[in-house]
Amino acid sequence: MKIYRYEENPLLTPADVIPFHDGFEVIGAFNAGIAKFNDEVLMLLRVAERPISDDPKIVKAPVYNLETETIDLIELRKDDSQYDFTDPRVVRDITQSTGFAYLTSISYIRIARSKDGRRFTIDDKPFVYPSGCLETLGIEDPRVTQIGDTYYIYYSAVSPVGIGESMVSTKDFVEVTPHGMIFCPDNKDVLIFPEKVNGKYYALHRPTVKSIGSPEIWIAESENLVHWGNHKHLIGLREAAWDCGRIGGGAVPIRTDKGWLELYHGASLEHRYCMGAALMDLNDPTKVIARSDMPILEPEADYEKNGFFGDVVFSCGALVEGDTVKMYYGAADTSMACAELSLQEILDSLTYI
Amino acid sequence: MKIYRYEENPLLTPADVIPFHDGFEVIGAFNAGIAKFNDEVLMLLRVAERPISDDPKIVKAPVYNLETETIDLIELRKDDSQYDFTDPRVVRDITQSTGFAYLTSISYIRIARSKDGRRFTIDDKPFVYPSGCLETLGIEDPRVTQIGDTYYIYYSAVSPVGIGESMVSTKDFVEVTPHGMIFCPDNKDVLIFPEKVNGKYYALHRPTVKSIGSPEIWIAESENLVHWGNHKHLIGLREAAWDCGRIGGGAVPIRTDKGWLELYHGASLEHRYCMGAALMDLNDPTKVIARSDMPILEPEADYEKNGFFGDVVFSCGALVEGDTVKMYYGAADTSMACAELSLQEILDSLTYI
Repeated sequence: MKIYRYEENPLLTPADVIPFHDGFEVIGAFNAGIAKFNDEVLMLLRVAERPISDDPKIVKAPVYNLETETIDLIELRKDDSQYDFTDPRVVRDITQSTGFAYLTSISYIRIARSKDGRRFTIDDKPFVYPSGCLETLGIEDPRVTQIGDTYYIYYSAVSPVGIGESMVSTKDFVEVTPHGMIFCPDNKDVLIFPEKVNGKYYALHRPTVKSIGSPEIWIAESENLVHWGNHKHLIGLREAAWDCGRIGGGAVPIRTDKGWLELYHGASLEHRYCMGAALMDLNDPTKVIARSDMPILEPEADYEKNGFFGDVVFSCGALVEGDTVKMYYGAADTSMACAELSLQEILDSLTYI
Repeated sequence: MKIYRYEENPLLTPADVIPFHDGFEVIGAFNAGIAKFNDEVLMLLRVAERPISDDPKIVKAPVYNLETETIDLIELRKDDSQYDFTDPRVVRDITQSTGFAYLTSISYIRIARSKDGRRFTIDDKPFVYPSGCLETLGIEDPRVTQIGDTYYIYYSAVSPVGIGESMVSTKDFVEVTPHGMIFCPDNKDVLIFPEKVNGKYYALHRPTVKSIGSPEIWIAESENLVHWGNHKHLIGLREAAWDCGRIGGGAVPIRTDKGWLELYHGASLEHRYCMGAALMDLNDPTKVIARSDMPILEPEADYEKNGFFGDVVFSCGALVEGDTVKMYYGAADTSMACAELSLQEILDSLTYI
């Protein structure tokens, strides 16, 4: 498959973003939801800011304080045997069997704008910032579904009680209407289809299960985009394949003649994240009809292999113009990049089930 | 608090239930949802049946086969070091960090009927039996919410892809209409309020989270009982208390003058399950206004302390007549029992927040 990575890649890096918080450094400008608004391409960037620590023995974990509306810094000593600091993204409490206790950075959503889809200018201020008790550890990995003149923006809401998916909407990228948490913890990687199918809205989602099962893609239906039900398991892991560790939806499903095309991410057990594709029935998206055996994009460029968390390509949005899929993606949990692929080549590469 | 345990307790035990499956033994008739229908009290029993193993070195794990519509038995050797058999309820795969690989029994829902609420006659056949790929490991812990002349019955649906909550409805306890999975994995202990509050349906639910957080009670809203959203965290664990390990809703919320009364279960870190109470605002059930410091019922009787999984009282339904709360409950994951408490005494015992 021909892949055209933009010469401008990475399109945005942390160095391009001025920190919003005093005493913080931007460590990620990545995993952006993508929208076309008027004559511009908008990246709804996940910006991750990390408190600067003057003492290498101390890790400062940021937690948004709802009362003071500022960020508290929890100081953790690296020699504290209760904590495990080996994953740069999180601090684990070794007395807990799973999961993490703190994040090492706090994320919010900031807009970058472009006329040509290649050169972006970043807004000075956050667009969506953590609010409420379900977002005190940040908001991450936004996706955008445009339905009519409304843009629905949904993202992982992280707090000490779990990671769920919350949604807001806007018509102008200025005024924002909150819609609450649409998928309760543990859930992320929600992708709302851009139109109703047979009278119902559909969304992909990715529960993270503890009792039994794996991090796989499910589908749900809705009448109003806020309340979701009739959950069905949709796409599973594949043993010994590039997507054997975890999978989740990536870009908003694309309507094609052949079916609904989903560009999804899959990770190996070694946490190498690639992008693949799956095709759902046009009239019943709860039926998967085809899937890519091999990734359509793998971390190969330096900015994809090396960064805050390397060997990651992770798309949260794509634009389609004729046969061209402009797949924007986070690279190495650090930067934003874009690659163009042929829609027909993606469809031709799929194995029908 | 005065607690009147019925002299007839346990009201039903596994010995009272003829196995539905040849070659199986009933090991549990417990955690029943409760309904009043015509002039009878109905227990919607969770009946757990275990394959009889002639070889003490072999554990047979039952899995419902959708194609043959019979139960496959996976034979596991007790000396296989890949598996951990210490919890009698499940088989764990020690190569997985959390959760279980198989259940040692398969559960379904069977009705027991009574004129006096004490002496029950059990139907010959299952009422709701596993169906579809989300229920191949069984269906568990039903609750029943009556709205008008319709009874909504919802239960944990267990399969290799997760434990979620699925719902059916009936008007006559003969014909059953399926409504699909209303809360995706990991979730259980759903309790739908018996009427709309300010124009919306509400339900308690209990996500089991892996990334961050604890097994605690959340609340969601709906317009149609099938699609749920606006999830909010409602009631948390309390350190060093009887409900420090895990909590979940128990009986359908009871409308009182003081607020919505929820009888919920809480477990200690040692898996001792008690029943407690919480009170939500009558006009806004997302607000908790009071909670019991001490359990309202603890495992004390022999049939509560000893059984398949001892030291458990676990209510899935109660009936209220005047000041009397008839709280039916599963005892020791084995049998059904009932205790009467005073509604006023429960309310008086609560500590307002």
